[in-house]
Amino acid sequence: MSERQLTPNRLEAFTDGVIAIIITIMVLELKVPAREVSNGEALIHTLPMLFIYLLSFVQTGIYWVNHHYMIHEVKRVTHGLLWANLFFLFTLSLIPFGTMWAGERGLTSFSVALYSVCCVLPAVTWNLLSNAICRSGGKHVAGSGRTAKQVLSGCLYLAAIPTAYFSRIAAIACIGAVAVMWLIPPKEIRELSRQPLS
Amino acid sequence: MSERQLTPNRLEAFTDGVIAIIITIMVLELKVPAREVSNGEALIHTLPMLFIYLLSFVQTGIYWVNHHYMIHEVKRVTHGLLWANLFFLFTLSLIPFGTMWAGERGLTSFSVALYSVCCVLPAVTWNLLSNAICRSGGKHVAGSGRTAKQVLSGCLYLAAIPTAYFSRIAAIACIGAVAVMWLIPPKEIRELSRQPLS
Amino acid sequence: MSERQLTPNRLEAFTDGVIAIIITIMVLELKVPAREVSNGEALIHTLPMLFIYLLSFVQTGIYWVNHHYMIHEVKRVTHGLLWANLFFLFTLSLIPFGTMWAGERGLTSFSVALYSVCCVLPAVTWNLLSNAICRSGGKHVAGSGRTAKQVLSGCLYLAAIPTAYFSRIAAIACIGAVAVMWLIPPKEIRELSRQPLS
Amino acid sequence: MSERQLTPNRLEAFTDGVIAIIITIMVLELKVPAREVSNGEALIHTLPMLFIYLLSFVQTGIYWVNHHYMIHEVKRVTHGLLWANLFFLFTLSLIPFGTMWAGERGLTSFSVALYSVCCVLPAVTWNLLSNAICRSGGKHVAGSGRTAKQVLSGCLYLAAIPTAYFSRIAAIACIGAVAVMWLIPPKEIRELSRQPLS
Repeated sequence: MSERQLTPNRLEAFTDGVIAIIITIMVLELKVPAREVSNGEALIHTLPMLFIYLLSFVQTGIYWVNHHYMIHEVKRVTHGLLWANLFFLFTLSLIPFGTMWAGERGLTSFSVALYSVCCVLPAVTWNLLSNAICRSGGKHVAGSGRTAKQVLSGCLYLAAIPTAYFSRIAAIACIGAVAVMWLIPPKEIRELSRQPLS
Repeated sequence: MSERQLTPNRLEAFTDGVIAIIITIMVLELKVPAREVSNGEALIHTLPMLFIYLLSFVQTGIYWVNHHYMIHEVKRVTHGLLWANLFFLFTLSLIPFGTMWAGERGLTSFSVALYSVCCVLPAVTWNLLSNAICRSGGKHVAGSGRTAKQVLSGCLYLAAIPTAYFSRIAAIACIGAVAVMWLIPPKEIRELSRQPLS
Repeated sequence: MSERQLTPNRLEAFTDGVIAIIITIMVLELKVPAREVSNGEALIHTLPMLFIYLLSFVQTGIYWVNHHYMIHEVKRVTHGLLWANLFFLFTLSLIPFGTMWAGERGLTSFSVALYSVCCVLPAVTWNLLSNAICRSGGKHVAGSGRTAKQVLSGCLYLAAIPTAYFSRIAAIACIGAVAVMWLIPPKEIRELSRQPLS
Repeated sequence: MSERQLTPNRLEAFTDGVIAIIITIMVLELKVPAREVSNGEALIHTLPMLFIYLLSFVQTGIYWVNHHYMIHEVKRVTHGLLWANLFFLFTLSLIPFGTMWAGERGLTSFSVALYSVCCVLPAVTWNLLSNAICRSGGKHVAGSGRTAKQVLSGCLYLAAIPTAYFSRIAAIACIGAVAVMWLIPPKEIRELSRQPLS
């Protein structure tokens, strides 16, 4: 009977597939300017979008990396967990939408604010997923270091929304700070998360 | 010689790949309005499509969840089963088409009716697949609770087709009701499908 | 040292991924007519393309099914086999291109002939891949029944190219005949390929 | 505790997924000319792009083949390795962008130079990834033959950038030479890399 239950491996493989597609289709949104525009102008026009693509790639990459750490805590795949995960993937798929919007309508204040909203949503559903795992018998996913980092990330994303109307660069810097924070983990967290593994 | 036979795992992995792509490419259909449209209008224009995308995401998610329960009953992968599965995936890939149609031509009565047709088709091929599994030696996939739910889903999808010409909201509500029905299973079915697993 | 060698499983998983994408992205080519066209006309305009999509889906599905039977014969993944497989996948990815061409420029004689060429190419590279597997130590992939079927398929695809200029329907029928031939295998072949497995 | 660590298999599966998507979505960039253009002209217009698509397919294929050989040396998946791999995938996803640019704006000197830049970038990040694997305890990935080939590839890609402004054909020939070099390995390297495996 237990063979009817979904294993964490299967959930992980499907999630990997969806994240691989999300992270890759964004390159299709790097619109190439029409032939009338000169090469120099066309490249200058593309550079901000290339940066936003890099930012979205890193955001999605952070979720991919953390999803694995989280899923490894899962003991039992329940109906609720399955749907919490699908709900998380849905919100994650809005990052390409935010990226597309900025690409199509330019990096206006509104575009940057909308992009920030698209970054907040997966952070929220990530917490729902994290709670669903706790309820289904997994240990609490990580120590206080990781939790503090998650709360700080959420706050930075939220802060980016109004900030976009004062300074678009400051708003993008907020989102970029989250990326850097997860790319180069502070020393304590690095020890916390890597020493026990070796 | 038995190594020439496809294992259920392989069938499942390919199906997962196709479903992961179907569920994700729909976000590419969230067309961003042109720069001439104001931000407020552009967002209002996008909201119904975002809702249809969510609906399509959930419909596809339901099939993904149930496909696993079903495939676990499979003992022998036959030629017929392979093609029944491919036929099911073909009809499932029409859900993005229905979503695209609504996105391109607006949520008219015709669009909603066509979207309902795109929801009916995988429900039909799902039954063909389910029968192919029974014939190839699998047990009947589920108890009467699940079967009743499938019949009710099919009826709601079918009812949505003519309803779209009287009220688009009512038709979408029919399809949404199916989604809710599978997301929050009634108590009996939840016990039926989860208790024996633990 | 043997761990540096690619296993057939890995080759298969990558091939499955590429085929899953090829088979699914074609739905993005089902262009939805603009709002100016009436619903009835729009649907009539879409129907031939829907049929071509179904045909391409089945063609790709046939290769997926047969790829598995073939790969199971592989004992050793060599450099040549790896590239023969990638070359096959390249030609297979031209089926969406042929489908797109027909979708964009209509089902003219030229479109149908080009589509036939796109069907001939993977049939040719399939034979190269089949030979590469034989050379790398696999048994000859199948009995005379399967080989005869492959030769006949190739001939029907080739015949469809000039036929398209006399009758587009006849050319599409040639290609459709190949699909039907593999979907409903003749009795002898069905026994040949299924009895030893059970 | 060790179960919290990502295995090389998982890293590989995700990388395979992303590369499968990169290699396949490029076919969507084979734009079909509008109906006004005659069939002959349309085909002639498409041929150079078809060649560039083949070139990009082979470039990406080379990385796929080599990624497997490299990953097999990995003993421990560290945080740094994970991000070195994601960074490599990001630069690899710029190959479709370079392909799209050439497709949209024609095979001008600038397009060919930009395409060459898109080929140089993954070669650079590939070396970073290779170093990250060495630091995380893997043996040096390959003998001097392979390293020489990598350096030569990098030089040919770099040389293609200025060459594009003198002769586009010569620049494409440089990039094509890299492809041929990896497709048909010289005898010494073939023995070096294949004899120990058998």
